Amino acid sequence: MVEMLGGMRLHDGGRAPNPRRVQIFLAEKGLDIERVQVDINTLETQSPQFTAKNPMQRVPVLELEDGTVIAETVAICRYLEEIRPDPPLMGVTALDKALVEMWQRRMELNFLLPVAFAFRHLHPGAAHLEIPQVAEWGTVNQGKAREFMEFLDRELQNREFIAGDKFTIADITGIVSYQFLKPGRIAYPDDLQHLTRWARQIVARPSVA
Amino acid sequence: MVEMLGGMRLHDGGRAPNPRRVQIFLAEKGLDIERVQVDINTLETQSPQFTAKNPMQRVPVLELEDGTVIAETVAICRYLEEIRPDPPLMGVTALDKALVEMWQRRMELNFLLPVAFAFRHLHPGAAHLEIPQVAEWGTVNQGKAREFMEFLDRELQNREFIAGDKFTIADITGIVSYQFLKPGRIAYPDDLQHLTRWARQIVARPSVA
Repeated sequence: MVEMLGGMRLHDGGRAPNPRRVQIFLAEKGLDIERVQVDINTLETQSPQFTAKNPMQRVPVLELEDGTVIAETVAICRYLEEIRPDPPLMGVTALDKALVEMWQRRMELNFLLPVAFAFRHLHPGAAHLEIPQVAEWGTVNQGKAREFMEFLDRELQNREFIAGDKFTIADITGIVSYQFLKPGRIAYPDDLQHLTRWARQIVARPSVA
Repeated sequence: MVEMLGGMRLHDGGRAPNPRRVQIFLAEKGLDIERVQVDINTLETQSPQFTAKNPMQRVPVLELEDGTVIAETVAICRYLEEIRPDPPLMGVTALDKALVEMWQRRMELNFLLPVAFAFRHLHPGAAHLEIPQVAEWGTVNQGKAREFMEFLDRELQNREFIAGDKFTIADITGIVSYQFLKPGRIAYPDDLQHLTRWARQIVARPSVA
């Protein structure tokens, strides 16, 4: 059973990594929200109407009934976690919450960001999104992403999920990064068996498939 | 009165932006923790002993009595906020928490990160920290930081603090970014009156001074 959350609208952005993080988070919670599709490729995020909602010109954006806007993927997830705590995706105890946050940030800063930089600075299709493209920075980040995947592979040798024995938001950030390797022109790490086992397992979840 | 938190040690890193964020957060909470100084400049963060604690080789790191390690600045702050909620620095209600997180992340992604990139990719003193330095990326980020400060100046026209009418972690991320402009070789935005008013006011707090 999916619960439709009333009194709010999600300005969504298709298959891009950040919109997908919220989509997966919602599906894991068994929640849905009325969607408004915003087209990143035609720069709809830069329209005056959208800019008035989020001056950062990025999706996703959660808009509440009174017009209050929550931007930033993890801030939207935080709101959803607070109003619908079960199942918990951001930790329960103080230590849990801190360790999930630690891993979520590690995934974001050392995996999602390098993969996104590689795409945005190297792919011709991102030239209108990233001005100017700095090709050298893209190439450096392909290397950083690979290096982090090697670290992650060693970590996953002894546990099921990124932040421990439960699925959390850190796995969500991880899998959208992994699935964005191809646009970033980074080889899938098929030689890293623990990371590959983890990815197969996460991709099989209904929320991700 | 400062409360000394027992049963934990903070691996600290002097005046670098991330260690400073935790230092200010602690001071605002009226808390202190036993400190171990780690020297970033001599690459002590890359020693085998430190790498065993935090494989990301970064400070700050909070180490609990049982050896559990919490790395990542905001994860450490989250833990402190959970065990000592007053005064709240990360919001109280669900909406509060989400809006503080939104602003904290905006400050981090659009202010601290560009200023740090400018420093790390342009400053000769950072050549051993950032390999390779990509000068063009540093220069692009000097521009990004200035652009974000102009946005922030407009936002601060109508409110006292970054996330609303209360001091929060978003102000902490903001002020350490502002105070890192010089190492990033970015001009202080003295022409932006609202941002400058905000910075003067934050710098005057005992936690920051």
